Amino acid sequence: MNFLEIAQTRQSCRKYNPDKEVEKDKLDAVLQAARLAPSACNGQPYHLSVCTGDTARRVAKATQSMGMNKFASDAPVMIVISEKPYVRTAAVGAKFKGNDYRSMDIGIVSAYITAEATAQGLSTCILGWLDDKKIREICNLSEPVRLVICVGYSKDDRLRDKKRKDLSELVSYI
Amino acid sequence: MNFLEIAQTRQSCRKYNPDKEVEKDKLDAVLQAARLAPSACNGQPYHLSVCTGDTARRVAKATQSMGMNKFASDAPVMIVISEKPYVRTAAVGAKFKGNDYRSMDIGIVSAYITAEATAQGLSTCILGWLDDKKIREICNLSEPVRLVICVGYSKDDRLRDKKRKDLSELVSYI
Repeated sequence: MNFLEIAQTRQSCRKYNPDKEVEKDKLDAVLQAARLAPSACNGQPYHLSVCTGDTARRVAKATQSMGMNKFASDAPVMIVISEKPYVRTAAVGAKFKGNDYRSMDIGIVSAYITAEATAQGLSTCILGWLDDKKIREICNLSEPVRLVICVGYSKDDRLRDKKRKDLSELVSYI
Repeated sequence: MNFLEIAQTRQSCRKYNPDKEVEKDKLDAVLQAARLAPSACNGQPYHLSVCTGDTARRVAKATQSMGMNKFASDAPVMIVISEKPYVRTAAVGAKFKGNDYRSMDIGIVSAYITAEATAQGLSTCILGWLDDKKIREICNLSEPVRLVICVGYSKDDRLRDKKRKDLSELVSYI
């Protein structure tokens, strides 16, 4: 699958098959891709907690306040992305430039995770609505949880139309 | 090229061939990929200003304070990523969860841009050290510039070893 096919195919999955586990070799490929992601000053300011079984369900529950993310309980794997401290050079850049490079790096690694998962025939959903405190307890983390990515097999493989800005709105040529 | 090959091949290029333009069809593919990137609540909170020729060189200059990014002057294309306002639902999430989803979204779209560029045989470098005010003037933008991505052909195609955390440090299984 080439990258444009991945980009076309990848969509947020909100209907997982709870009975279909993610094979170890596929999960390994996803984590290998994550490891290769670039980051500001190569700081890699994140940690991945890969949750399965009962732990995955507890993490799912911690994303479900106010009626959100009910589907997450069926995802067999939940990858929790927590934020690590800046390396010194990236911290200096962030301070001088008023930019949140760690969040950008977490975005990049999320894209790598979801792209390789798609290439492996897996479905994903990136969750930003989460209970930081609860997930830190479940995963024994001392640093902030930023995103959780559901990984599993979809019960509904139909490709939805992607609603995106027209290129003419997204892009200017200067 | 599959995604793991893209992840292995993609590296920050700091030596562009100033005489080799980026073909329109390749740049179009990169922008198509960017358009397909997912974002929090599908807000797509960014705009891409594609700079070439003299404009690219002016943008490059605006990334070069304190001796940084001298190589950028040779990149034939500079894609400036500026930040647009949140859509309402993402703004609510960001406020309640203390998360900078827009920076994450900008990270994701950067990963899509650099992945497809790599697939097209192009080289890239993501720059976070930049003069927001100057680039806003050059590109006629009213909103903050977050990243600039150099795009072009490398003068040095050797693949460097990637220095990354070991998987055992990056990942915990819970």
